[in-house]
Amino acid sequence: MRDDRILELIEQKKYIDLKNTLTEMNEVDISEIIEELDHSTSLLVFRILPKDIAVEVFAHFSPEKQAQIINSITDKELKFILDELFFDDMIDMLEEMPANIVNKILASSSHEERALINQFLKYPAHSAGSLMTIEYVELKKSMTVKQALDHIKETGLNKETIYTCYVTDNNKKLKGIVSLRNLVIADSDKLIEDILHEDIIYVETHDDQETVANTFKKYGFMALPVVDREHRLTGIITFDDIMTVIEDEATEDLQRMAAMVPSEESYLNSGVFQLAKMRLPWLLIFMLGASVTGSIITKFESLLSTYVVLTMFIPMLMNTGGNSGNQSSTLIIRGLATEDVSLEDAGKVLWKEFRISLVVGIVLATVNFAKNMLIDRVGLQVSLTVSATVALIIVLAIMVGGLLPLLAKKLKLDPAIMAGPLITTLVDGLTLMVYFGLASVLLI
Amino acid sequence: MRDDRILELIEQKKYIDLKNTLTEMNEVDISEIIEELDHSTSLLVFRILPKDIAVEVFAHFSPEKQAQIINSITDKELKFILDELFFDDMIDMLEEMPANIVNKILASSSHEERALINQFLKYPAHSAGSLMTIEYVELKKSMTVKQALDHIKETGLNKETIYTCYVTDNNKKLKGIVSLRNLVIADSDKLIEDILHEDIIYVETHDDQETVANTFKKYGFMALPVVDREHRLTGIITFDDIMTVIEDEATEDLQRMAAMVPSEESYLNSGVFQLAKMRLPWLLIFMLGASVTGSIITKFESLLSTYVVLTMFIPMLMNTGGNSGNQSSTLIIRGLATEDVSLEDAGKVLWKEFRISLVVGIVLATVNFAKNMLIDRVGLQVSLTVSATVALIIVLAIMVGGLLPLLAKKLKLDPAIMAGPLITTLVDGLTLMVYFGLASVLLI
Repeated sequence: MRDDRILELIEQKKYIDLKNTLTEMNEVDISEIIEELDHSTSLLVFRILPKDIAVEVFAHFSPEKQAQIINSITDKELKFILDELFFDDMIDMLEEMPANIVNKILASSSHEERALINQFLKYPAHSAGSLMTIEYVELKKSMTVKQALDHIKETGLNKETIYTCYVTDNNKKLKGIVSLRNLVIADSDKLIEDILHEDIIYVETHDDQETVANTFKKYGFMALPVVDREHRLTGIITFDDIMTVIEDEATEDLQRMAAMVPSEESYLNSGVFQLAKMRLPWLLIFMLGASVTGSIITKFESLLSTYVVLTMFIPMLMNTGGNSGNQSSTLIIRGLATEDVSLEDAGKVLWKEFRISLVVGIVLATVNFAKNMLIDRVGLQVSLTVSATVALIIVLAIMVGGLLPLLAKKLKLDPAIMAGPLITTLVDGLTLMVYFGLASVLLI
Repeated sequence: MRDDRILELIEQKKYIDLKNTLTEMNEVDISEIIEELDHSTSLLVFRILPKDIAVEVFAHFSPEKQAQIINSITDKELKFILDELFFDDMIDMLEEMPANIVNKILASSSHEERALINQFLKYPAHSAGSLMTIEYVELKKSMTVKQALDHIKETGLNKETIYTCYVTDNNKKLKGIVSLRNLVIADSDKLIEDILHEDIIYVETHDDQETVANTFKKYGFMALPVVDREHRLTGIITFDDIMTVIEDEATEDLQRMAAMVPSEESYLNSGVFQLAKMRLPWLLIFMLGASVTGSIITKFESLLSTYVVLTMFIPMLMNTGGNSGNQSSTLIIRGLATEDVSLEDAGKVLWKEFRISLVVGIVLATVNFAKNMLIDRVGLQVSLTVSATVALIIVLAIMVGGLLPLLAKKLKLDPAIMAGPLITTLVDGLTLMVYFGLASVLLI
């Protein structure tokens, strides 16, 4: 509805009304509207925006739109945007831009800025360093509360957050933090030294973003300081970037668990071949892996031709084994990712899974036995064989599903690869061996 | 290491040192340490803490520890904790406590508090109302910046956040928001009316927590106001509670996708029977469902006894079909959950999945054909039958995997139920029908 009003204002060329309406809106919403416009209209609307709002809107554009805008505006306009953009948004943008635009941006940066940009671009993807920004409030122990508040008043507009302030010494070493809350509440002649928290929770530049996200969740902080190996403050990470990380990490795990090569690109923005490429490698591997399972069947051809009825239960057995293994591996993978479960719990986890597998195995085998006898009417011997396989394969599948993610963690691999499709392929083979093995003993 | 130091101080009964050390620490860490202690020691350490810290530590305890503490402290101590506890933490606690403790708590509350508690306990689980708290800073349009800051200084200590303040009229209707940042930066004689943002992003008490989480992620806010149907401000939700929601929602989806009945209990705290109960219902349903697949095999017994070699490829075909359907459903389910994909995109999504399925199908069928001819050496006719099944079943599986989550969304069901195990069961049946159908035509 509001979008319609804006389109109307554009059409009627009521640019002053348009500017006033947009200025009242949230930047995220403005950027969404502009993204939908055609190239020349979007540039026009972008230029109508007050400069400070324009920068924030720019930060929320897709990389494609950012590139388009950079290619269309003057060097002076570009310089303004680059100066005002938060450093983490600038780095995010540079990582996505084609080389010619990166060069254009670097050309309009000062020597020091270029050095800093290069340093930040070198942090590994998904590290704390790649998430942090440099716009934080820095205070000294010797300041009074009033001096600190005046300092914030002067410089605060250009900071990513002013709600947590960082106290450093002359060597940039992190000495403590002070919240704006405490500053506002404290007497104005108190010293920072007297109100700062020294027990600082921090992360290091090379920490993985999953560690960073778990620290945020545990403590509920708004921002975390990032220090280098000499404990010097190099940047801060704010909660809003972490919300995206928590979600991205879950998406990545899900994609791995469904045997895909993870991609950060959104589904709708990805091309057909790109999406096919995510899916093909593991499908191929599992297709070839499953051939091994097939060859087990051929080894028992004579058994199957004597007891043709056995074939009928193969899909059910493979399905049930795969599903129970999948449930178990999903719980353990997720537990490891959210740090609800750790490697030290491995023994406890496996013992618990074993007991669960007995409960699940007995219940399903009993139901299956009743069904075999009363509905399928395949006779006592076959019913016993099938039901015993159900029980045994559930125990095996659950143990495999519980063990593999822990093993992956131990080997410093991503536990998420030890999920459904892999477990299914392994369990399918196990199922057939158990089934035919039991049949050979019980039926002949 | 720090934990060891604390245990040492407890053992040596150096209570003053202990108090000083604990006071310097983060409450989350303190609560973790106390949780590990035996009952009487934990009560002793809890009582050593300064009162304001004790309340925050209490809020981080597990429900079991909270109940233990409540049962052991005096009514006066309990009253202090209840008065100081943030309202959302209080409600969270009440939801977990046994009836006798709930009664004890209600008995020490005033009449108005009891009414408010009852109102909050009535909000549906996972609604915005169940997440919100009432400790926010309320301002009036007519206040000056100085008056507002003085008001915050006076009352701020007891607020969940003071960084976003809410402007209401005399009927409690939400009129705008002001950030502390803008208050600190503005001239002290300006009116709130002149600096407030009127384009407020808010949620309603009955909105689902997934909607709330998506709003937080989209805008990167620190807090969101919650209004009732008359647009009256009833509470606020802060980002720290939302981080947990984002993670819990992902966990819930994962559990559903692995055919489990979701549970919020942590893995390690859940009992064997509780965990077995999560897993049994769908395993039973799919086990019975897979019997139908098995009965398809029996219909083609004569075909299978003529071409025994066909049996060998059944596991590979079911596996490949299941995996490709699973990949597709995982991407769509996740896209719907993160609002990357919406129902309006259904046509676009299905057309994209169809083209992907052609690419994936052709690649896998080709590889399979080469393998059948060169390694398995099963002859041209069988190779053609198996490879054609691979191609066809991949197209079918991917379309089923893409369609079902969208259908679930359309029917207002959770798309996460349309995942791996269900898709596998459906696709297994399809696979066999396609396989035997093609074999009947191509081989006879």
